[in-house]
Amino acid sequence: MSAPVIHYLANDVTAGRVADAIAAAGGRPIMSTADEEVAEIASRADAVVLSGGTPSAARLRALCAAGLAARAAGIPVVLDPVGCGASAWRTRSFQELAAGVRPTVIRGGAAEIAALAGIGTAARLRGVASSGGDDAAVARAAAERLGGTVVVGRALSDGRRNVRRSDGPAVIARVVGAGDVLDALIALACAGIADAFVGAELGLARFDAAAARAAERGPGTFWPAFLDALASA
Amino acid sequence: MSAPVIHYLANDVTAGRVADAIAAAGGRPIMSTADEEVAEIASRADAVVLSGGTPSAARLRALCAAGLAARAAGIPVVLDPVGCGASAWRTRSFQELAAGVRPTVIRGGAAEIAALAGIGTAARLRGVASSGGDDAAVARAAAERLGGTVVVGRALSDGRRNVRRSDGPAVIARVVGAGDVLDALIALACAGIADAFVGAELGLARFDAAAARAAERGPGTFWPAFLDALASA
Amino acid sequence: MSAPVIHYLANDVTAGRVADAIAAAGGRPIMSTADEEVAEIASRADAVVLSGGTPSAARLRALCAAGLAARAAGIPVVLDPVGCGASAWRTRSFQELAAGVRPTVIRGGAAEIAALAGIGTAARLRGVASSGGDDAAVARAAAERLGGTVVVGRALSDGRRNVRRSDGPAVIARVVGAGDVLDALIALACAGIADAFVGAELGLARFDAAAARAAERGPGTFWPAFLDALASA
Repeated sequence: MSAPVIHYLANDVTAGRVADAIAAAGGRPIMSTADEEVAEIASRADAVVLSGGTPSAARLRALCAAGLAARAAGIPVVLDPVGCGASAWRTRSFQELAAGVRPTVIRGGAAEIAALAGIGTAARLRGVASSGGDDAAVARAAAERLGGTVVVGRALSDGRRNVRRSDGPAVIARVVGAGDVLDALIALACAGIADAFVGAELGLARFDAAAARAAERGPGTFWPAFLDALASA
Repeated sequence: MSAPVIHYLANDVTAGRVADAIAAAGGRPIMSTADEEVAEIASRADAVVLSGGTPSAARLRALCAAGLAARAAGIPVVLDPVGCGASAWRTRSFQELAAGVRPTVIRGGAAEIAALAGIGTAARLRGVASSGGDDAAVARAAAERLGGTVVVGRALSDGRRNVRRSDGPAVIARVVGAGDVLDALIALACAGIADAFVGAELGLARFDAAAARAAERGPGTFWPAFLDALASA
Repeated sequence: MSAPVIHYLANDVTAGRVADAIAAAGGRPIMSTADEEVAEIASRADAVVLSGGTPSAARLRALCAAGLAARAAGIPVVLDPVGCGASAWRTRSFQELAAGVRPTVIRGGAAEIAALAGIGTAARLRGVASSGGDDAAVARAAAERLGGTVVVGRALSDGRRNVRRSDGPAVIARVVGAGDVLDALIALACAGIADAFVGAELGLARFDAAAARAAERGPGTFWPAFLDALASA
C-alpha cells in the first residue's frame, strides 16, 4: 500500500503537527470531523485515529460515528483518550466511546488509560501530558478490560503479548503532540498489516528512530528535524 | 498598499501555517469565522480567502456570508475547495458555495476542481492532497463553467488566457498546507491589482521563489526556511 | 511549584504554538473549551488564559465560565482581547467578558485595549496585530477603568505602578502569535506569585530573553530558536 489515507479526527491543538507527520511519513492525511461526512470518509480510509483532545459533545459524536463506520468496514481504529481524568464528563465520555467502538489500538499515558479502564483515578490535574505509574501493569490490565492492543507510555500489551520499549530522549518532556504523532504513526503501520500489536510496535519503532535523530535539539528545532528524519527513513 | 489585511477563513489544520505565511509576506492576517462578524470583517478586508478544509454546516454558512459581503464590496475572493469529492455532501456544498459567491479565483488540485465543476468524479479517496489528471485541461474547462480565474496545480486559466508553470520542488509532496499558503499569497497579490489572473500568476511566482530557496530541506525544515525566504524577498 | 498547569482557552490559529511555548517553558498546557468541563478544569489549574481570538458565541461562554471559576478559586486569569475593535459584536462581547470576570491581567495592543476600555475607537481594520498609539497612556487609563494589571505593547500599569520596557526585535512584526505566547508566559509567571504586576513583568522579561536569542533569524526559524532558548533558560 503506497500512501495510505489516514483519517485523523484531530484535537484543536496538534492537528497541523500530526498532518505534517503523516505527510512526511508518506501517508495522506484527511482531518474531517463533520457529522455530514465523517462516517463516509472513515469507511473509505486505510486507518482511522480518534483523538480525544479538546473534546466537545459534537466532536464526541463524530469520533463515535467515524469509529463505528471504520470498524464495520474492517479498518483499524486507534483511540487516544487525551486528558482522560481531567474532568468527570471527559472520563465518562471516553469510557462510552471505547465501549461502543472497541478500538483496535488504545494509546495514552498511564493516568489516562487507568482512568479509561477504571483501574484507579488520577489524584491531580496534570495537563494532558499525564505520566507516571507502572506503565506495563496499566497496559496489561487495560488490555484485559478493554480488549485490543493497549499502549501506555513505552509499554504495549494485547493481554497475551507484553513488550516494554526503552525510554525516548529527554526533550520529549518539553514538546507537545508527541503522543498524537505516535498515534498517527501507529495508524499508518496498522494500515498495512493484520496484527495490530505488531502495527503498534512498528509505529513506536518508527517514532523512536526519528526522535533519536532529532534528539540533540531543543523542543523548537526538534519537530523540524523529526519530520526531516521521518521523510528520509 | 502596505500591509494588506487578508481575511482568511481557515480550516482546522493549517490556520497557523497560513497566518505565519501572510505575516512573513508582509500582510496582516485575520481569521474570524463567527456568524456575528464575518460579513463585517470581510467587507473591510483587502482580500478574502475561503478555505473549504474541515467543513461544517456552520463554517459553510460563514464562508458564504464572507464571500458575498466581499464580492458586494468589490474585494477579491479566493476559494479553495479542499477535498472536494471526498464526500457527496462536501462536493454539493462547495458547488453551491461557488455558484452563490462566484469567486474571483478558484484554486485546487485537478480532482478537486473537476469534482467542483462537475467535469468527472474522483474514483478513490486520496486525502486532501488530490493530484493527477490533466491540470491545464481541467483549469480551462472549469474556468469556462465557473467563471473567474481557475488555478489547477501549476496551470492557470481564465477561459481566455492559459498558462502552465513548471513543477515545484519534490519536497512539496511531503508537506501539508502548500496549497493553503499559495491561496493566501494569491490573495495578497490580488489585493493590490485589478486583474485577478495576473494576481494569481504573481502569487504562484512568489510561492515558487520562496519554495526554491527552501527546497534542499526535508519537509520539517522546509517551512521555517520558506517563511524566512518570504520575508526577505 | 514545578510544572504549573496552564489552562489556555485558545483561538483557532495559535493554539499549537502556545502549547509548544508552555511546554518548552516547563509548564503543562491544557486547552479545553468544552462547556461540560471548562469550569472544573479552570478551577484546578495554576493559571488561566482567556484568548479572545477567533471568537464565537459558544467560545465566549466558555471563556466567561472558565474566568469566573478561576477567579472564584483565587487563580490568576490573563485576558487577551484579540482583535477588539475588529467588529462591533467582538468589542461588546469582550467588554462584557472583562466586566464579568475582572481578570488579573489584561494584555493586548493599544487599539485593542483602547477599544476594550472605551478610550477611543480604531479607525480602520488592521488585522489582529493592531499597534500604535501611546501604549503607556492607554495602559494607565485602561488600568484605572478596568482594574488589575494592564499590559499594552511594551507598557505595563496597575494604575499605581507604570513601567515601559524597550522594544523587542524587528522580526516580531513578521510573526504570528507573539502576543499569545507572551500571554502564556505571563500566566506561567503569575502562577507562582501573589503580585500580578510583578508576574507580568517577569513574563515579559522571559519572552524578551528568548526573543533576543532568536532575533537574528527570519520569521520561520524564529519560533524554533525561541522555543529552544525558552527551554534552556
